[in-house]
Amino acid sequence: MLKIKTTNSLVTPLLTDKYQLTMAYAYWKSEKQNQDAVFDLFFRKNPFKGEFTVFGGLDEVIKFLHNFKFQQDDIDYLKTTMPNCEQGFFDYLLSLDASKVKLFAIDHGTICFPKIPLVRVQGPLAVVQLLETPLLNLINYPSLMATNAARFKLASGPKVTLLEFGCRRAQGPDGAISASKYSFVGGFDATSHVEAGKLFGIPIQGTHAHSFVSSYMDFSDIKNPTLKDSKGEKEVNFVEFTLEARKETGYLNTNDSELAAFIGYALSFPDGFLALVDTYDTLLSGVPNFLTVAYSLHKLGYKSVGIRLDSGDLAELSKQSRKMFTECGEKFGVDYFKDFRIVASNDINEPAIHKLNANNHEINVFGIGTHLVTCQAQPALGCVFKLVEIDGVPRIKLSNELIKITIPGKKEAYRLFGKDNQPLLDVLVKTDSEQIPKVGERFLCRDPAIESKRMVVTPSKVVPLHSCYWDGKQVKDVPSLAETRKFVLQQLENINPVHLDLLKPKQYPVTLSDELYHFLHDLWLKEQPPIELK
Amino acid sequence: MLKIKTTNSLVTPLLTDKYQLTMAYAYWKSEKQNQDAVFDLFFRKNPFKGEFTVFGGLDEVIKFLHNFKFQQDDIDYLKTTMPNCEQGFFDYLLSLDASKVKLFAIDHGTICFPKIPLVRVQGPLAVVQLLETPLLNLINYPSLMATNAARFKLASGPKVTLLEFGCRRAQGPDGAISASKYSFVGGFDATSHVEAGKLFGIPIQGTHAHSFVSSYMDFSDIKNPTLKDSKGEKEVNFVEFTLEARKETGYLNTNDSELAAFIGYALSFPDGFLALVDTYDTLLSGVPNFLTVAYSLHKLGYKSVGIRLDSGDLAELSKQSRKMFTECGEKFGVDYFKDFRIVASNDINEPAIHKLNANNHEINVFGIGTHLVTCQAQPALGCVFKLVEIDGVPRIKLSNELIKITIPGKKEAYRLFGKDNQPLLDVLVKTDSEQIPKVGERFLCRDPAIESKRMVVTPSKVVPLHSCYWDGKQVKDVPSLAETRKFVLQQLENINPVHLDLLKPKQYPVTLSDELYHFLHDLWLKEQPPIELK
Repeated sequence: MLKIKTTNSLVTPLLTDKYQLTMAYAYWKSEKQNQDAVFDLFFRKNPFKGEFTVFGGLDEVIKFLHNFKFQQDDIDYLKTTMPNCEQGFFDYLLSLDASKVKLFAIDHGTICFPKIPLVRVQGPLAVVQLLETPLLNLINYPSLMATNAARFKLASGPKVTLLEFGCRRAQGPDGAISASKYSFVGGFDATSHVEAGKLFGIPIQGTHAHSFVSSYMDFSDIKNPTLKDSKGEKEVNFVEFTLEARKETGYLNTNDSELAAFIGYALSFPDGFLALVDTYDTLLSGVPNFLTVAYSLHKLGYKSVGIRLDSGDLAELSKQSRKMFTECGEKFGVDYFKDFRIVASNDINEPAIHKLNANNHEINVFGIGTHLVTCQAQPALGCVFKLVEIDGVPRIKLSNELIKITIPGKKEAYRLFGKDNQPLLDVLVKTDSEQIPKVGERFLCRDPAIESKRMVVTPSKVVPLHSCYWDGKQVKDVPSLAETRKFVLQQLENINPVHLDLLKPKQYPVTLSDELYHFLHDLWLKEQPPIELK
Repeated sequence: MLKIKTTNSLVTPLLTDKYQLTMAYAYWKSEKQNQDAVFDLFFRKNPFKGEFTVFGGLDEVIKFLHNFKFQQDDIDYLKTTMPNCEQGFFDYLLSLDASKVKLFAIDHGTICFPKIPLVRVQGPLAVVQLLETPLLNLINYPSLMATNAARFKLASGPKVTLLEFGCRRAQGPDGAISASKYSFVGGFDATSHVEAGKLFGIPIQGTHAHSFVSSYMDFSDIKNPTLKDSKGEKEVNFVEFTLEARKETGYLNTNDSELAAFIGYALSFPDGFLALVDTYDTLLSGVPNFLTVAYSLHKLGYKSVGIRLDSGDLAELSKQSRKMFTECGEKFGVDYFKDFRIVASNDINEPAIHKLNANNHEINVFGIGTHLVTCQAQPALGCVFKLVEIDGVPRIKLSNELIKITIPGKKEAYRLFGKDNQPLLDVLVKTDSEQIPKVGERFLCRDPAIESKRMVVTPSKVVPLHSCYWDGKQVKDVPSLAETRKFVLQQLENINPVHLDLLKPKQYPVTLSDELYHFLHDLWLKEQPPIELK
């Protein structure tokens, strides 16, 4: 029955709230199940006190539509939980798929803003209703994650490599896989998570842990000390060879068991030696031992990679380590020593990066776990899924809170660009309207709520944001993760930095066409009659 | 190859960090892979600024051990990422399973405290090392989640029913499933998440959403208005019948489309009518419409359930609603109306519950989503996995920060109870020690760090906390989720409330036997020689 491979066995039509099924039953009983419904999926507020969001999850949404089909054992289970429902309903459920559904979406990885539908779904009321929870689940966290990753990218700057290290602290196995995937989309360079590498082709990286260092007692722990030089010409006992090299580096008072561990690791990866240097004492033992082994490897023609710092004052330790690299390189006339990579990985979050930057750190790579994958600063994006039209009649969800009012009817979104080719604003327009923004023509855009707030734009470029990805079947491809990542990074370059600022961002305007503005306000007043004074 | 059904297709040996594999290779190269290693999995700090934690995840850990086996396509992938590693290593990886591993754990659902190992794993160094990331992943979030749920339970009190509503905001599909599962373990009564119900037998609940209400335009939306009374004797047009009942209740100025939706829902679930009442105006439309339909159903012999509030001042609205229920019940002489259930579900977190309590709310059921499942107040538990012994030699991870020092060697944990049968403290004792706490005998317990802080306990009961769950194969069953939940709730009753206080909790003592205290401190001093003044 399954048409394409799912990432996760849990992504089935039962990834949903029970009320979707009780509603489906009530729709079916009222013969409303096939009414033509339009739902918008959107968020009301950017996460992390920021002013932008990166759209993630479209790839899994499309996979979900391919596979949207209740199985007999799902139905058997549902019957036990809805014992008084008619058999005809369960037959109906079993017959459902996404062949009558249309899905429009903004492109995967689009930098997006509140109120603009990320996804618009049209189809039989009961079916589209059943898609609510899975679509929200498949979009909320991926978008949050991609946004968080992009923020880390902006915070750490273009020169720093970013690694996702969150597998152990993620919210379950799939929290981990989604984190790896969408942090890559948001601009990370690699992950430590092996399964994410296997499933999605994301580059994976990793070296060793403290336990590796602690597991070595002394040099006798190394049973196979033989190492050939890089040309495969001469063979040495690498333990003895390194202990000789140690006399040259002069780092004699370091921890021997740590040195043994480094030698053990270098024997396995002579081409890619990177050492975790803080098990005992970073500057008195770890870095000296690293340099001894790196020098020993150098003498055999191997170029080491660098160190990882996992505790302490990372800025200060990185500067001190860089100084030691440079001095050691100068001592032996080896130029590349000064450029050894410094990886840092201890509880890094956005404020920590700002502080490291202010302290002129010498770190080349951040390994980021907990704060990235759990999105500590705001662990959920509040996407909602709202009915905006039924059988051609626009619907509005009223609320006394302005921010919670939905914009009724089917809508298109356009991104209007200024002379410098930077996006100026997004504007929502009624579908099939003749009031459409055009290049070189003045267009009136209105704030959805504040009557006096109007902007006139003469766009140099007009980009429609939505396109149809699913029309009974998939009609447009979702680009690869690597392409999506590239698209994200390009947009981060091209959007006015005031909107991307991490600390004091400026709101990006999301507006309505004049026609949609009046349509919204007329309906709003109509649905909410004036209070009768008695 | 798989021996038991996994919950999630992503839970494989590749649910791991790459460095576990590079380390495994280095162990293998040094012929250290079969050294007998002991690792402790523990946390250093209770989450949520609290003083207790509920252990979750043991069930999935045991499943993982059953299925721990690399597949050929895993190996094929790994070869591409570790191109210079020897073929023998990959053959070795392919041969691995958990048949040489021993796992001791505290019981699933145990209320536990920092430093006490949740799990102790013993076995071949490389294998146990490979278990690190998956075990942390499978324990960190479940324990965090169960703890968070228990806190919600404590906050809302024994009379309130708790529903987990977080599927759409959880961190991925498995974030959702883990959230449903371990919130049940922590004391929740049911979930909205259908898959969790199917997989784990957790009760599922749900009614309808705002979109359901919005989807009804008027009474003509109801195509099948016929309803039989509860005895199946008389048949009415339920729309007409309810409009007549409305004349009796006198609620004539309510929103008709909302009333139509409620009638539509009641027709489908006449036995379990529960209405979401805030789509238009809770007190002017929603509750009156609910009461009209409930009265109409009452006249046909059906008893309605209640209402759900999803916005506004929940305490005030619940009190006003209760008042309206009571008045309406009195008017028609129906006693049970005053007891209609009030479900509340808008962005509820711990502080919100404290506030609701202070305002004497009339809510019977909390539906909690985002704040529960994302553990907003602290989205990660920091469990670590530390090597404590290798080939019988104790290992210690030093750190300048006292809190980060590990307690070396194999240890047993005992919970000592006082006269009132309440736990007094936990004490760690060296495995195979003769210094073991016994009922009625004085036992000296020491703070791990502060020399002067000693306690003498004469326990009325001594409970060893660890038992062996896995010895090459599963040797002890993990109780069902329902039993585990019961165990959690029993402990919450029996632990001194000062440790469970949500706002100003008192630390529960975790101590060492005198022998272990000296063992730790001797090793610590030995491994960290005095600073040489120059």
